[in-house]
Amino acid sequence: MPHLTLEYTDNLKFDEQDVLARLHSELAATRAINLKGLKSRAVRHSDYRIADGNPEYAFVHVNLLIREGRPIEVKKDASQRVMKVLEDTFGQRFENSYLSLSVDIKEMCEGIAMTHHNIPDLEKKK
Amino acid sequence: MPHLTLEYTDNLKFDEQDVLARLHSELAATRAINLKGLKSRAVRHSDYRIADGNPEYAFVHVNLLIREGRPIEVKKDASQRVMKVLEDTFGQRFENSYLSLSVDIKEMCEGIAMTHHNIPDLEKKK
Amino acid sequence: MPHLTLEYTDNLKFDEQDVLARLHSELAATRAINLKGLKSRAVRHSDYRIADGNPEYAFVHVNLLIREGRPIEVKKDASQRVMKVLEDTFGQRFENSYLSLSVDIKEMCEGIAMTHHNIPDLEKKK
Repeated sequence: MPHLTLEYTDNLKFDEQDVLARLHSELAATRAINLKGLKSRAVRHSDYRIADGNPEYAFVHVNLLIREGRPIEVKKDASQRVMKVLEDTFGQRFENSYLSLSVDIKEMCEGIAMTHHNIPDLEKKK
Repeated sequence: MPHLTLEYTDNLKFDEQDVLARLHSELAATRAINLKGLKSRAVRHSDYRIADGNPEYAFVHVNLLIREGRPIEVKKDASQRVMKVLEDTFGQRFENSYLSLSVDIKEMCEGIAMTHHNIPDLEKKK
Repeated sequence: MPHLTLEYTDNLKFDEQDVLARLHSELAATRAINLKGLKSRAVRHSDYRIADGNPEYAFVHVNLLIREGRPIEVKKDASQRVMKVLEDTFGQRFENSYLSLSVDIKEMCEGIAMTHHNIPDLEKKK
């Protein structure tokens, strides 16, 4: 069920597929999120402004949309794992330039949100 | 007041205007949502990853942003009507390929969110 | 920490940087939001439908994502300041065409959302 959105400013260059793959692998490692339910997209922004508009500033923001009611420990674990991937990927920029990394989690509306899919159970496939 | 966002992966081909028109018509049929207040956008994603990254996988996700405090029955009705349109439009793909359809509803922040518009009352125009 | 997203339909022409700069300046003027934490993006939509699909209709929607638990007065002030910038920028359109302006505020998930950045304190820089 989870949806992940990774937004980034176009002054950052990286392999989107590689980062999304690592995020999927980390989120599946929480054991509370099924790999088969993970649906992610990367969104590059060309029109942005950070703080006073210095073009050297960059941001990456990940929003994770999960089912309502997961224990706070699961949410913290998921958030920390996402941040770890962002730091591993972009953290070098902290040394000689400017960067903001952020992670947020939102919950789907229990009893109202709906999913209908036929993505196979990847564990069973093996 | 409602905002609708339909996100989809670029391996799906369909007539966005036709689907948005059907969604507007279904949501207006709830009688709790005014057609004149409906503002929708379709967003195509080229950088995405679903589950293990199989390129045959596709998703459509609709988020509906409505005024806070609507009865749960209204929200369920709206969610089910949106899902019905998605199933009618994309459901054939379930037979020979992979697809995830999902719907979520979020509420605007009561007493804080603001709208200012002059979109005419379409019922009265007739 | 705040993230701002300004969405608009592509039948509106304006200087995105100028509007984002004015939004930053207004939000910093709330004194509850730090300029250095503000990260904004403008998103232009080409596939949209408003009400009955009249192509003269346009919308601008701003979502502000802030830290959880700010007093309601701060949120109201922020929302009104954003709406004021939208009205100053786009309000002329109300006279001879159609437009919907809207503002919403969402809160980051306290204790779970994370930010890691090195954007300098702009006040101290002066």
